[in-house]
Amino acid sequence: MKKRLFSGIQPSGDVHIGNYLGAIKNWVRLIDQYECIFCIVDYHAVTIEYNPKDMQKRILNAAAVNIASGLDPNRCIVFVQSYVPEHTELAWILNTITPMGHLERMTQFKDKSKQNAENINAGLFTYPILQAADILIYKSEAVPVGEDQVQHIELAREIVRKFNTRYGETFPEPKEILSEASRIMGLDGKAKMSKSLGNYISLVETPESIGKKLSTAVTDENRKRRTDAGNPDVCNLFTLHKHFSKNEQIETINAVCRTAEIGCVECKKILSNNIIETLTPIRLKYEHLVNDQDYLLNILHTGAKRCKEIVRDTMSEVKKKMGLI
Amino acid sequence: MKKRLFSGIQPSGDVHIGNYLGAIKNWVRLIDQYECIFCIVDYHAVTIEYNPKDMQKRILNAAAVNIASGLDPNRCIVFVQSYVPEHTELAWILNTITPMGHLERMTQFKDKSKQNAENINAGLFTYPILQAADILIYKSEAVPVGEDQVQHIELAREIVRKFNTRYGETFPEPKEILSEASRIMGLDGKAKMSKSLGNYISLVETPESIGKKLSTAVTDENRKRRTDAGNPDVCNLFTLHKHFSKNEQIETINAVCRTAEIGCVECKKILSNNIIETLTPIRLKYEHLVNDQDYLLNILHTGAKRCKEIVRDTMSEVKKKMGLI
Ligand code: SF4
Ligand code: SF4
Repeated sequence: MKKRLFSGIQPSGDVHIGNYLGAIKNWVRLIDQYECIFCIVDYHAVTIEYNPKDMQKRILNAAAVNIASGLDPNRCIVFVQSYVPEHTELAWILNTITPMGHLERMTQFKDKSKQNAENINAGLFTYPILQAADILIYKSEAVPVGEDQVQHIELAREIVRKFNTRYGETFPEPKEILSEASRIMGLDGKAKMSKSLGNYISLVETPESIGKKLSTAVTDENRKRRTDAGNPDVCNLFTLHKHFSKNEQIETINAVCRTAEIGCVECKKILSNNIIETLTPIRLKYEHLVNDQDYLLNILHTGAKRCKEIVRDTMSEVKKKMGLI
Repeated sequence: MKKRLFSGIQPSGDVHIGNYLGAIKNWVRLIDQYECIFCIVDYHAVTIEYNPKDMQKRILNAAAVNIASGLDPNRCIVFVQSYVPEHTELAWILNTITPMGHLERMTQFKDKSKQNAENINAGLFTYPILQAADILIYKSEAVPVGEDQVQHIELAREIVRKFNTRYGETFPEPKEILSEASRIMGLDGKAKMSKSLGNYISLVETPESIGKKLSTAVTDENRKRRTDAGNPDVCNLFTLHKHFSKNEQIETINAVCRTAEIGCVECKKILSNNIIETLTPIRLKYEHLVNDQDYLLNILHTGAKRCKEIVRDTMSEVKKKMGLI
């Protein structure tokens, strides 16, 4: 039997190619190796002040874009956290065995407390416990995360040990699968690609917009004139070539840029075509999903139903061991 | 329509006449005035280390003794908290709007942290939030509590205001009904009646045991010989007479104790008979309930089912307002 993998997905408004290369592409690879559960974590998202009017759209968008980019609901589970409220029930139980001191030392809590100084709430504080519950309720053994989440997975393991010691062997210790920190730079060539900086290409960007955004993207800054030789090693667009272009193209550009045989305009055109080629099927699938909300909701409810079967078993085992049934 | 009242009941191993006079008797009175919901709060009980093997018995005992002493399941709801896990779901939501500072100033948390220094867990810390969820999920307006719980009800009101401000008018502000701190002293005449001090009469004590316990109970300590006059005003057993004996008996004893016309042995005999008279029907009903566990569980599951109907409405309103459905 395959080991189970759990991954939480923030219901963000928009997903860019940095997210895709850094996370989603890895997840798609993991679907073969693990029994995968992907969860839009809306109950985590509400720990930070937000506009309730946008939330539903954010949830459905996140589901649609992730499914469209490869989380095939026939091969893995995709669902929304708040559809399976047992996550919060287990979180309460885990609260009762998690020492305050462990939560206080969480780096993310300290960071978020600084960013949300006017709203340091108990949800931010116990966030890692809900996260542990998300993972443990499926007895997941693998959790793909970024470096910044490793401390939370360590805490989840400590919680497992505490629970198993007090109530008897129940949960396996989950292990993180570190994503190879694919720090995709933004089109400004200056900072990591991010939604808030506006230096990104959305995963569902139209072909026109992709071309337009690339046309103003920063390349090798030392290449001032068409006749100057360029250096692909310091050009952010060459990194994107490595992710989106064919091997021969990459090799050729690596050579002809250095001899000024190719200009940035032409090079960007090739990149643009390749990005469009990769993203078009994703965008079309995404548009189909968001335009047929019933179909999308049906996928998410089917996913939640499969979760509920697993969750029912875990919760009745947990409650029995705790003397609650 | 009657206002709704919520009361949490700790799943304690045993209930004594101090609990009965201090709390249960008041609740029984409130059943006429309010739509009453009584909840055995097992999810609160697990915030303190306990023996899982005992918990189920503690829960059923608490249910049985409270039903036996007047919480008639035909006139109010009696159920077990963990049967309605939506309490923990709403608690998570309320976490996200409760400032850390509010929880840190809770007196009970500070006290319990001292008592459980080796296990100060996040459940102890967020305990008042689960309590608020218990109350709010039924839109309860009245909560009978002791003095020590008033701070938690105040917090629940603050949480209501926060939620209503952020997401729109949803919950009424609950008000505490202070129990007239009936500090029943123990049979040692020295400390409040309490299980741990062993100075109590259980609500399901047998007649023999009631007689025996009273026979060694401390009376007016200045009354050393049978011929000494006694002072009912300083005699703890006279206080019990006031709760259990008939008015004429109380008046007579108040007089003849002072003149030594009655001795403590005889006086105790009268008290013993009256306590037995009050407790016998409670004990018989209790024994019937604990010996017919199916019947008792059926009462509790019927109660939970009625709760689930209310809770479903509240949660779908809450989620809709938060943009989660
Ligand atoms: S030709 Fe291509 S790789 Fe070379 S600097 Fe221009 S964009 Fe970058
Ligand atoms: S006679 Fe009764 S009231 Fe008077 S001291 Fe004895 S027990 Fe107390």
